Amino acid sequence: MTGVQPTASAIARLIPVSTGNVGLDGGFWGERLRVNRERSLGHGFAQLERAGTLQNFRLAAGLEGTYRALGADVIGTVFPFLDTDVYKWLEAVAWELGRAPDPALASKAHEAIELVAGAQRPDGYLNTYVQVIGGGRAYRDLAWGHELYCFGHLIQAAIAWHRALGDDRLLAIATRAVDSIGQATGPAGVALDGHPEIEMALVELYRTTGDRRHLELATRMIEARGHGAIGEGRFGSAYWQDHLPVRDASTVAGHAVRQLYLDCGAVDVATETGDVTLLEAVRRRWHDMIATRTYLTGGLGSRHRDESFGDPYELPPDGAYAETCAAIASVMLAWRLLLATGDPDCADAIERAMYNGVLVGSSLDGTRYFYVNTLQRRTQRVAARPGDGERVSWMPCACCPPNLMRFLSSWPQHLATTDATGIQIQQYATAELRAEVAGAPVLLKVETDYPWQGSVALTVLESSDRPWTLSLRVPAWCRSAKLRDGGTDRPSASTGERTISETRTWRAGDSIVLELDMPARVTEPDPRVDAVRGCVALERGPLVYCVETADLPSGTELEQVELATGVQPTPVARPDIAEGLVGLSVPVVDGAPPSIGAIPYFAWANRSVEAMRVWIPRRTARNAQGTNRDEG
Amino acid sequence: MTGVQPTASAIARLIPVSTGNVGLDGGFWGERLRVNRERSLGHGFAQLERAGTLQNFRLAAGLEGTYRALGADVIGTVFPFLDTDVYKWLEAVAWELGRAPDPALASKAHEAIELVAGAQRPDGYLNTYVQVIGGGRAYRDLAWGHELYCFGHLIQAAIAWHRALGDDRLLAIATRAVDSIGQATGPAGVALDGHPEIEMALVELYRTTGDRRHLELATRMIEARGHGAIGEGRFGSAYWQDHLPVRDASTVAGHAVRQLYLDCGAVDVATETGDVTLLEAVRRRWHDMIATRTYLTGGLGSRHRDESFGDPYELPPDGAYAETCAAIASVMLAWRLLLATGDPDCADAIERAMYNGVLVGSSLDGTRYFYVNTLQRRTQRVAARPGDGERVSWMPCACCPPNLMRFLSSWPQHLATTDATGIQIQQYATAELRAEVAGAPVLLKVETDYPWQGSVALTVLESSDRPWTLSLRVPAWCRSAKLRDGGTDRPSASTGERTISETRTWRAGDSIVLELDMPARVTEPDPRVDAVRGCVALERGPLVYCVETADLPSGTELEQVELATGVQPTPVARPDIAEGLVGLSVPVVDGAPPSIGAIPYFAWANRSVEAMRVWIPRRTARNAQGTNRDEG
Repeated sequence: MTGVQPTASAIARLIPVSTGNVGLDGGFWGERLRVNRERSLGHGFAQLERAGTLQNFRLAAGLEGTYRALGADVIGTVFPFLDTDVYKWLEAVAWELGRAPDPALASKAHEAIELVAGAQRPDGYLNTYVQVIGGGRAYRDLAWGHELYCFGHLIQAAIAWHRALGDDRLLAIATRAVDSIGQATGPAGVALDGHPEIEMALVELYRTTGDRRHLELATRMIEARGHGAIGEGRFGSAYWQDHLPVRDASTVAGHAVRQLYLDCGAVDVATETGDVTLLEAVRRRWHDMIATRTYLTGGLGSRHRDESFGDPYELPPDGAYAETCAAIASVMLAWRLLLATGDPDCADAIERAMYNGVLVGSSLDGTRYFYVNTLQRRTQRVAARPGDGERVSWMPCACCPPNLMRFLSSWPQHLATTDATGIQIQQYATAELRAEVAGAPVLLKVETDYPWQGSVALTVLESSDRPWTLSLRVPAWCRSAKLRDGGTDRPSASTGERTISETRTWRAGDSIVLELDMPARVTEPDPRVDAVRGCVALERGPLVYCVETADLPSGTELEQVELATGVQPTPVARPDIAEGLVGLSVPVVDGAPPSIGAIPYFAWANRSVEAMRVWIPRRTARNAQGTNRDEG
Repeated sequence: MTGVQPTASAIARLIPVSTGNVGLDGGFWGERLRVNRERSLGHGFAQLERAGTLQNFRLAAGLEGTYRALGADVIGTVFPFLDTDVYKWLEAVAWELGRAPDPALASKAHEAIELVAGAQRPDGYLNTYVQVIGGGRAYRDLAWGHELYCFGHLIQAAIAWHRALGDDRLLAIATRAVDSIGQATGPAGVALDGHPEIEMALVELYRTTGDRRHLELATRMIEARGHGAIGEGRFGSAYWQDHLPVRDASTVAGHAVRQLYLDCGAVDVATETGDVTLLEAVRRRWHDMIATRTYLTGGLGSRHRDESFGDPYELPPDGAYAETCAAIASVMLAWRLLLATGDPDCADAIERAMYNGVLVGSSLDGTRYFYVNTLQRRTQRVAARPGDGERVSWMPCACCPPNLMRFLSSWPQHLATTDATGIQIQQYATAELRAEVAGAPVLLKVETDYPWQGSVALTVLESSDRPWTLSLRVPAWCRSAKLRDGGTDRPSASTGERTISETRTWRAGDSIVLELDMPARVTEPDPRVDAVRGCVALERGPLVYCVETADLPSGTELEQVELATGVQPTPVARPDIAEGLVGLSVPVVDGAPPSIGAIPYFAWANRSVEAMRVWIPRRTARNAQGTNRDEG
């Protein structure tokens, strides 16, 4: 089973290949998942204990002590949503234990579940902040209190434990907690949390339990939002998407993670209730977001002050907020839209966000994190802007690290989908995929060195005697793709064909190879992006590249680097960064040394870090001649 | 007398021509000061009453009632520094009444002074926030409480009343308040406010009263800062300039207004104590700030989140914070440095900041204000960023409007200086200047249509029979300046001569005319400013221009406008914006219609406002041909 599992009556076009049916343990993603499982999860548990987050559940259960929150003494505030760090960590563990047992990890998770169970009040309510230092008064501040947001993450963890392991301890806790929401909803039967999240969780709870009350509550929450009921707050009602009804707003607005989680819930509600106009509203908003407010890295959120989307094309690289959680949320939304609509743009967006905006959130060793993901860090700085400098092992607001853990552990769920006609490979990774196609089991082996190379070998290990279609996504960045089938090549039209499909009666042992041409690319920005005018970025395959000071000729500041027109970067092995990693070598002046090195954006800040930039200025005649402030 | 009045023993190079000796009632500045006096001051008093700020003094004096703060219900916080709004307004009134009587204004001021007097505690302490809703416990939170900051503004108002009017009611209150600081300083004899301001006020109090304890306290505050005593707070110790000693920090950092006010105090301390290394530290920092962190408009502060300076060359036009108070503070600092060092760059910086970054803070009618001064507002927006949209009549944090009022009312003090050899005209405005030169009185009449025209006529009305030097600043933007003396022209070298001086025995009736060539200029940005690469700005004289949607051909969005290389803007009268105002007409494509209109940046947002931008993209071959995201 997977984290997003539309019911049979939903209006979804595609069905996910569930996690239990995806064997992923080699290649690029095998290594990322191994690090997440073997390093990050243990690190995370230790941090949850160190930060006091687990201890706070003990206090809620009655233990004497002081509520703790990392950095509260420095920042002068205690965030009310720290419980979710535990829930997200638990969700990650569920998916991982579902993939393979690990007694030590299971033991830690058992301890955490016991703590959660012990903290729940007899009336079902559960929030350590409210119970320990909030005077026990539930639902007093729905706008800022994050109580329902916390329940959402609890529900998602509970569903993962149910689906991956058949362990319903958290599900019992979560359903009792949801029942307690009646205290908040009052006679109107609806309550709006300032931070959406519970909506998608409630729909998934309905999908899990069959209890339609959960779907109905989620539907009411989606419908009630956007009428100004939450108030203006510090940042205006758009901050929490309460400025326009969810089915009316034509663009994303406000706090990026809130908008994206809300739209996840809206898609889930629309899918289950058959509400095509609601679905269309989200789809339209998503396309606008991709076109006007998405960083090249798939990052989202242009403003630090309120963690918000900016105006169209307001995408400053140095000022990027691009919270790791926002990139994760964007993949969650694109995945839901892909299932609902089959739109191949969604799979492309997932790829761009995963390889760049999501992965950058963790160090290669899985134990240090970014919250903010800048696209430019300067050589000369006075005071670090939080998150644009060094990765840290944990944060006072630690939403991102465990979100990354749970998301990576669920990543195998996003590789492939099925429909009545066959299997669609949405993301390329070395894996074994087991699916049911037209009622018959299929087992497919995928082998690839993606994203370093564009060759993907697919071998059918099991199939029935019925014909079905194997569909392979051709990423939008790929100008030339072909299918090798034994001795024959089948070229794909290079005019933007989005899928290569092969329909036949597949036999065990049948093998085809997809060849995606993957030259390094020099990418011009949309001219409406003011902040990177006159610059270019380097890309190869799904990867966005960046330049770090460490890869410049000695004594060169990154701000001095300009690229001549017509330079062609060439791939080079960079084992110094990571095994198998492919960097780029870029001549600074056309044809002549010296050259500079570029590495994948996700891999930056894994060495002693000085400056970094994704967008690099073009050399112009004016710049080459020196400059003059006044030409008049 | 003026607001900054170094003592005879100070190491100042120049002496200000005091406000009582500057008659300014015509021309550009005459109109700005008239609006400030006749519109803003009355508006401000009404707003102080409406917002509860005056009423809070009544509460502190014992009246029953609820402490009020504009917008506190929406933003969820009450700022502890609202008293300063009254003090700044009172300072403005003092300078204005010193220029000419106004019984109605005097009556309002009398009422305000009575309220301040009534609120002061018997022990001298005075802070309505602490007294009414802070439990009366003084100096409990020096980092965030702004208590000494409030005293600083009280002192400055008191000095203005003393110097401009000989009215010492506020001075008595202020000195008693300062005496109460002993409760905060403890045995160490020093207390550090998170928001510097009191340092310069204490030096001025010493200059006024001769009491060296005030200078010594200010000196201790300057020396104690920068050793981490205030703590990290939410934004790190650089936020309040506590990261490096004031005499060591090589660059500005943190909250822009705090840094600038601190450096004002440091210059004042250095000047009075003869501390040349401290003075040199501020001067070095100031030059670096002008070179690397100052907007074309003289605005300062690149980041919204902590109202801070950015890294070098981090100057996003759309993300500009550029608080009106920061521009004012920069003029206050440059003025102090000009007096201390005579550095002509300081007078240039004052001019740039005043005509652009300061004036933009108020509507032309003087009753609506910007706090944040963006350099770009887009056509398409979802949610307004506070301050980048419409001017407002008052703000929850209303530091800027009364700061603008007091600063405009003190502006005549900044026009000219004297030294042992003569008079230096620092800023050009229609005015009569009375000064003492080498012990003898001089009266000088200045007539000009500056900044609209570059001609400045100077006539000596009174002088002695001793020779003295009349020095005229040649702004750095001016490529050609000449002095007309009767029938003869004396050209200035065009190679960056900063001053034209004329030494003679001046006779009553002597007249000379300075001619500053003032063509429209197309200004290239420093290539290190990433955010405006590929753009140019339009300037003329001291004015930065901008383009608003209202001056585009119908149906054109501002984001579509690009300027061809080689276009030459031409001045055009724009009586529709303001009487006498000179705009620019700019051909979009070289030589051909249509053209677009540009208006002075300070005058934007005085019509129905859609989009605005200062930096306009250059038309490039690539842009002209249409675009392609991927050139590879």
